Amino acid sequence: MSRIDLAPIGVVESDLTDLAAAPSQGAEGAPDAWLVFEPSVADALDGMAPGDRIVVVTWLHRARRDVLRCHPRDDVNIPLRGVFTTRSSERPNPIGLHQVEVLAVEGLRVHVRPLEAVDGTPILDVKVTLRR
Amino acid sequence: MSRIDLAPIGVVESDLTDLAAAPSQGAEGAPDAWLVFEPSVADALDGMAPGDRIVVVTWLHRARRDVLRCHPRDDVNIPLRGVFTTRSSERPNPIGLHQVEVLAVEGLRVHVRPLEAVDGTPILDVKVTLRR
Repeated sequence: MSRIDLAPIGVVESDLTDLAAAPSQGAEGAPDAWLVFEPSVADALDGMAPGDRIVVVTWLHRARRDVLRCHPRDDVNIPLRGVFTTRSSERPNPIGLHQVEVLAVEGLRVHVRPLEAVDGTPILDVKVTLRR
Repeated sequence: MSRIDLAPIGVVESDLTDLAAAPSQGAEGAPDAWLVFEPSVADALDGMAPGDRIVVVTWLHRARRDVLRCHPRDDVNIPLRGVFTTRSSERPNPIGLHQVEVLAVEGLRVHVRPLEAVDGTPILDVKVTLRR
């Protein structure tokens, strides 16, 4: 299959810089953070407002890509299983999915919480959360 | 920001071939489909079983990438807004997120439903659904 080449649409700005200290999921004590978008995608933010619930799709650039099996939740007492049956960040294509709430929109900067991605994480896409 | 290069981990096999006929969301009448994985990621499927609820991350390869604003749900009566505030497939990086249930696992082939992605859609990643 042909490879895919893409350009990030923005980057995460966060006080979280230590990968080891980052919570596994946003709901586990992750801080608020800023999404800083590229000027070229400004129009795609049109209508975003505080209170919106969005899914941020990131590229977990510091994750290992050669791991196919892991202990869920880094608990060695849980047997190894395939990374596709977990939410481990270590996987062939380390794509992060983050459900966050929009706190503020200031031009190309969007304040959100909670976000467990570390400072400098590239942003690939943003969508509204699907209502079920 | 540096560009990102990635290789699909598999491909969607579906009776859906007509983009115009595909439902906008899986819950809107999408069919069942097969996820066909690359042999290189076989170990990452270890433990996947019928009944699992997973998120399939796809690359919507036939979507336009130059669209920044759209009418939600293709309804021209709804004012144009930024694609990041919608779930339109047309966006700078057309990444699809699909919540599906696993029906069967046969080696590298995983049967799921419902999936609104058309036949031949590259798969980028698979995760278990986050329990909240």
